[in-house]
Amino acid sequence: MDVRAAVAFEAGKPLSIETVQLEGPKAGEVLIELKATGVCHTDDYTLSGKDPEGLFPAILGHEGAGIVVDVGPGVTSVKKGDHVIPLYTPECRQCEYCLSRKTNLCQAIRSTQGQGLMPDGTSRFRIGNQRIHHYMGTSTFAQFTVLPEIAVAKIREDAPFEKVCYIGCGVTTGIGAVVYTAKVTPGSKVVVFGLGGIGLNVVQGARMVGADMIIGVDINPGRKEMAQRFGMTHFVNPREVGGDLVKYLVDLTKGGADYSFECIGDVKVMRQALECCHKGWGESIIIGVAAAGQEISTRPFQLVTGRVWKGSAFGGARGRTDVPKIVDWYMEGKIQIDPLITHMVPLEGIGETFDLMHRGQSIRSVVKYS
Amino acid sequence: MDVRAAVAFEAGKPLSIETVQLEGPKAGEVLIELKATGVCHTDDYTLSGKDPEGLFPAILGHEGAGIVVDVGPGVTSVKKGDHVIPLYTPECRQCEYCLSRKTNLCQAIRSTQGQGLMPDGTSRFRIGNQRIHHYMGTSTFAQFTVLPEIAVAKIREDAPFEKVCYIGCGVTTGIGAVVYTAKVTPGSKVVVFGLGGIGLNVVQGARMVGADMIIGVDINPGRKEMAQRFGMTHFVNPREVGGDLVKYLVDLTKGGADYSFECIGDVKVMRQALECCHKGWGESIIIGVAAAGQEISTRPFQLVTGRVWKGSAFGGARGRTDVPKIVDWYMEGKIQIDPLITHMVPLEGIGETFDLMHRGQSIRSVVKYS
Repeated sequence: MDVRAAVAFEAGKPLSIETVQLEGPKAGEVLIELKATGVCHTDDYTLSGKDPEGLFPAILGHEGAGIVVDVGPGVTSVKKGDHVIPLYTPECRQCEYCLSRKTNLCQAIRSTQGQGLMPDGTSRFRIGNQRIHHYMGTSTFAQFTVLPEIAVAKIREDAPFEKVCYIGCGVTTGIGAVVYTAKVTPGSKVVVFGLGGIGLNVVQGARMVGADMIIGVDINPGRKEMAQRFGMTHFVNPREVGGDLVKYLVDLTKGGADYSFECIGDVKVMRQALECCHKGWGESIIIGVAAAGQEISTRPFQLVTGRVWKGSAFGGARGRTDVPKIVDWYMEGKIQIDPLITHMVPLEGIGETFDLMHRGQSIRSVVKYS
Repeated sequence: MDVRAAVAFEAGKPLSIETVQLEGPKAGEVLIELKATGVCHTDDYTLSGKDPEGLFPAILGHEGAGIVVDVGPGVTSVKKGDHVIPLYTPECRQCEYCLSRKTNLCQAIRSTQGQGLMPDGTSRFRIGNQRIHHYMGTSTFAQFTVLPEIAVAKIREDAPFEKVCYIGCGVTTGIGAVVYTAKVTPGSKVVVFGLGGIGLNVVQGARMVGADMIIGVDINPGRKEMAQRFGMTHFVNPREVGGDLVKYLVDLTKGGADYSFECIGDVKVMRQALECCHKGWGESIIIGVAAAGQEISTRPFQLVTGRVWKGSAFGGARGRTDVPKIVDWYMEGKIQIDPLITHMVPLEGIGETFDLMHRGQSIRSVVKYS
């Protein structure tokens, strides 16, 4: 079938709106009509050419929501008409990782996904004879896309696509890190480094689970108001702290954070996030993605005296099991998404969104397919 | 009272056997007659002058066992005649740390202990007018010593002092790291870096809890036999591994360690220990103490993909609660101590023990008081 899509032909060049040929679903696969997709910094990172695993040409996008319009042979978990969120972290429920009960990092289709291909080793997108790669197994910058059924989360039908698409990445990454990775307990003191989209979702996750103190740390005072709306109780601007930020945070929390979250991707901040944790039990969770080759470091004494250093990918959430719950939390008003979305554009407006991101604007744009 | 003790008058000089004056127990304190004490590398580290917190003159020793011979006013948890192990990590059961349920690092007497003093800010040891410091709150290189009651673990009376004294430090540090810090589960794959006293106790801890694969890593092949007696299933000599040790261990474990333990104090090995862990869930526990100022480092990707970096002090064991259980495990034959002890000497032989340690011999000496 012919589908409209924004194609990334090469690194560093704008996306191009094209008509692309898409092959239908094979065994165990589903065809999805996308209704909306978020535009995430990770898409931009890959488009920039800095992502060492980036492949071109490709259809980017990994934060979608849509409707199943066709299923291949053997598909049992979803059917035509189901509302779904595509998952860049699948959940096969069969592999060593899924069965470990200790991680969400299902490995069932990892190698082909990393090669920009479907599990059978082919791409379903092409323009004439030119093969177009899939991206993160999702390729949501197209009106239709094909995914293995293990990579779609079935969600309730009253959820608005143009809001819950954000649960496909950013919302889950932030809230999941609180709920599934750190397992923050009520009454906790939490420090969040970076109040962008991920940080705000960490903040509201911490509020949802009943944290007492939610400290946001950001050099941009413009982010204070929104963070307060999301549950931040204290704002710290490192540029206004005279002296050592770690000491300041340890004093403010009367001993250190029970949990800290790094939502920037800066290895120096990752160290501060660890070291502001409480002796004996403080846990620091790395969410931000550092530039290739960069390293974190600290004195081992920080760990021997009881701090724990860990990381979180897709919020530690299992896609098919946990993503629908997060959709419920949104529909029940436990978490907010609407105020985070600053722009709503048609597919043709996606280039403008990338332009605004390149100019350093804090935007969160959603493409709504007509 | 007059007591015989080995006194460290200054850094880098041999201990000197002296008659020291000891004041009896004040409120909340107990007087203990030591029956035996281990000699640990930490004592030697402090004696060497390299320990930045070392104080002189002092009575070293922190791995003792003995009998309560007197109690001060208000002592309720032990009585005259009780067999006890002195605790350098006390357990007050009242402080924020004890009540957190998340750490064994009781802080009740931390500041005075760090100053080489009893909780009331005085030393009870002197020679004439010269004040002698306490060490680690225990000072077991003396025939009698005074401790707060929160720093003694009451143990069963049939346990031999000259064996269970080792539970006062090394045994608990190794076994506790497995049982209390890592909470290793049956069927796990465990990698232990360094097969000295701590490493061997990690090995037998892993065996006790039912680990499937217990890989010992040491450059000294002479340690292989003893480690096998303690439960090691595979020995790896890094000098015999062609190429990357981390890759070798990941292959050997078919994906990585569920748990790894660094028992050396080498920051490069700490990195290997983390990176040989299984993606998704492997946890690496730092036990070894690195030289002052040294730092650990890794790529944050190691954590974001699910590995956890933590540390352990005194095996995460609560002194009064868990140490008596470990004594029971020894008496029930679940763990071994006897083969680890290579020398048994009177107090007068302690200088010789330090000499052997300085010559790099793998010895584990116990002083038996007559």
